[in-house]
Amino acid sequence: SRSLNLAVIPGDGIGQEVVAEGLKVLSAVLPQDVKLETKEYDFGARRYHATGETLTDADLDELKRHDAILLGAIGDPSVPSGVLERGFLLKLRFAFDHHVNLRPSKLLPGVATPLAGEPQIDFVVVREGTEGPYTGNGGTIRKGTPHEVATEVSVNTAFGVERVVRDAFARAQARPRKKLTLVHKNNVLTFAGHLWTNVFNKVAEEYPEVTTDYIHVDAATIYLVTDPARFDVIVTDNLFGDIITDLAAAVSGGIGVAASGNINPGREFPSMFEPVHGSAPDIAGQGKADPSATVLSVALLLRHLGHDAEAARIEDAVSADLAERGGLPARSTSEIGDALAARVAG
Amino acid sequence: SRSLNLAVIPGDGIGQEVVAEGLKVLSAVLPQDVKLETKEYDFGARRYHATGETLTDADLDELKRHDAILLGAIGDPSVPSGVLERGFLLKLRFAFDHHVNLRPSKLLPGVATPLAGEPQIDFVVVREGTEGPYTGNGGTIRKGTPHEVATEVSVNTAFGVERVVRDAFARAQARPRKKLTLVHKNNVLTFAGHLWTNVFNKVAEEYPEVTTDYIHVDAATIYLVTDPARFDVIVTDNLFGDIITDLAAAVSGGIGVAASGNINPGREFPSMFEPVHGSAPDIAGQGKADPSATVLSVALLLRHLGHDAEAARIEDAVSADLAERGGLPARSTSEIGDALAARVAG
Ligand SMILES: CC(C)[C@H](C(=O)O)[C@@H](O)C(=O)O
Ligand SMILES: CC(C)[C@H](C(=O)O)[C@@H](O)C(=O)O
Repeated sequence: SRSLNLAVIPGDGIGQEVVAEGLKVLSAVLPQDVKLETKEYDFGARRYHATGETLTDADLDELKRHDAILLGAIGDPSVPSGVLERGFLLKLRFAFDHHVNLRPSKLLPGVATPLAGEPQIDFVVVREGTEGPYTGNGGTIRKGTPHEVATEVSVNTAFGVERVVRDAFARAQARPRKKLTLVHKNNVLTFAGHLWTNVFNKVAEEYPEVTTDYIHVDAATIYLVTDPARFDVIVTDNLFGDIITDLAAAVSGGIGVAASGNINPGREFPSMFEPVHGSAPDIAGQGKADPSATVLSVALLLRHLGHDAEAARIEDAVSADLAERGGLPARSTSEIGDALAARVAG
Repeated sequence: SRSLNLAVIPGDGIGQEVVAEGLKVLSAVLPQDVKLETKEYDFGARRYHATGETLTDADLDELKRHDAILLGAIGDPSVPSGVLERGFLLKLRFAFDHHVNLRPSKLLPGVATPLAGEPQIDFVVVREGTEGPYTGNGGTIRKGTPHEVATEVSVNTAFGVERVVRDAFARAQARPRKKLTLVHKNNVLTFAGHLWTNVFNKVAEEYPEVTTDYIHVDAATIYLVTDPARFDVIVTDNLFGDIITDLAAAVSGGIGVAASGNINPGREFPSMFEPVHGSAPDIAGQGKADPSATVLSVALLLRHLGHDAEAARIEDAVSADLAERGGLPARSTSEIGDALAARVAG
């Protein structure tokens, strides 16, 4: 009999609430012969305040033993900006070499978008996850004085760029439209820009069926609101990916339904799946948070581990639930979770 | 009698067409006693192909003698990406210390927006223009090999951050809502982020009437499409400003009406005014381009030089023209210019 050994990190704020629903749906969808084992970890603001720790080497050793990680949200106003982001979220992405940060955007029927008209939105962003301006390189001299200088160094390697570009081409090849767009700013960031552009063009030769184009990141934000239908797969650097995926989430129904995977494609380390939204302390503990983004992250997790049919059942359930939602009275976090669990089980 | 001594750089593509209309409106609005002198310069793709030059020291000495610079657009597909951007546009911003890159966004009545509902949009972005990832610092080793490493260094100084933050606070103080938002990514880019945040908080103490807040750049793109009314003045770094001002232009009527100023507030060097749109080679030479963004850039130019009443007349004319436009048959570039010139003269 098969097993799925999951590390669960509810985290802060609404993280607890949405993860509970994600697990509910996961249990409901898994075939009888797959044994689900979960172990919960208390990372986040409370642990930081209690122990000063964010993520230790021993923690990483523990997490490493699981097949995958499901995360709710990490972050709290009581912790200085950057501490949990650098000390937990980014540390985990770097330690487990999550170089493919996968963020699908699909505007589902019945879902409200801030865009006028009836935009067609169905694309996926492959964001590089271990390089660029996220490496923590840089520093400060003369801190706090009128002569302070602070630098941030974006580090880009042929190795790092090529592997994520290859992943994106493979994904584009597998989709009906077979289109891949590189988003960068190669007219200004010419060093990194040339590397990205050259690698992209080189790998493109191996994928003659994939249509390619290039768009500067500033122009990409324009197209995301005026013509999102032009995008199929986007590949981009870590920081540009961070920015455009929030915008992509906003136009395709909001961060209430945006899922993401921090993926190590070769499975040397467990991959981590999380909703794009944060811990939303303002609505935490009220049973108001929409668990759909977490549930869709569970679908990405299942697909990563090869449970494609179950992933599709979850996606269909969320789709059906959202399509009906306009007619439904407002439901709590757990009511939505119950409804989704019932659908995938049925 | 007073004079206005203007350097005019039509540039590439539609640049020629829109600048002609900008000058037409400028001539029509200027009081009789202001003598307008213009000198045209041939920077851009043609000059680059003919001479290999983009902007020489002698050119800078010439340009320096003018009160201001009006630019159409620079850029052509025949020139490799980065050559004119780094060699002309950015070189000029850096040489003339254009540290305030001013980009107002106002959704005018009658203007189409990709957003649903009737969003209220009236804010201005103060983008830093001489630092951040735009400095050209960084480099490449092992170029073209599987071991290539390319870096981009974002350079941020207390001097550079403080002067642009001060400029933004002064602008916020002068507006009815008196609100200033800092946009950065201080949870990840912690070195530069701390510098920006500390300087911002320090200067805020001198402006007790200005309400302040902070938003990460990724979240800012969400608010720009879901709640643009929350913004009054935004201050941000060079690259974040590049990205969010394209999005801001898109939601507030498109780059057809987005103006910008590359400003040296102390007037040690002439400031440069240009539409946010590029050279649009696909529609060049057809008399189709909307000159409104250039005309509004002329208004920014006039306000920078203290001709506030004339700037307001131009803005009112563009507003009135756009409000009427829905009812008008499509007009050519010069027909729109004529209409605006007639309005400001009347
Ligand atoms: C919280 C932060 C470190 C993170 C990022 O910048 O990657 C978040 O914005 C995201 O997109 O997952
Ligand atoms: C053309 C390019 C160098 C420029 C920039 O990145 O600043 C443009 O996008 C702009 O916003 O003025």
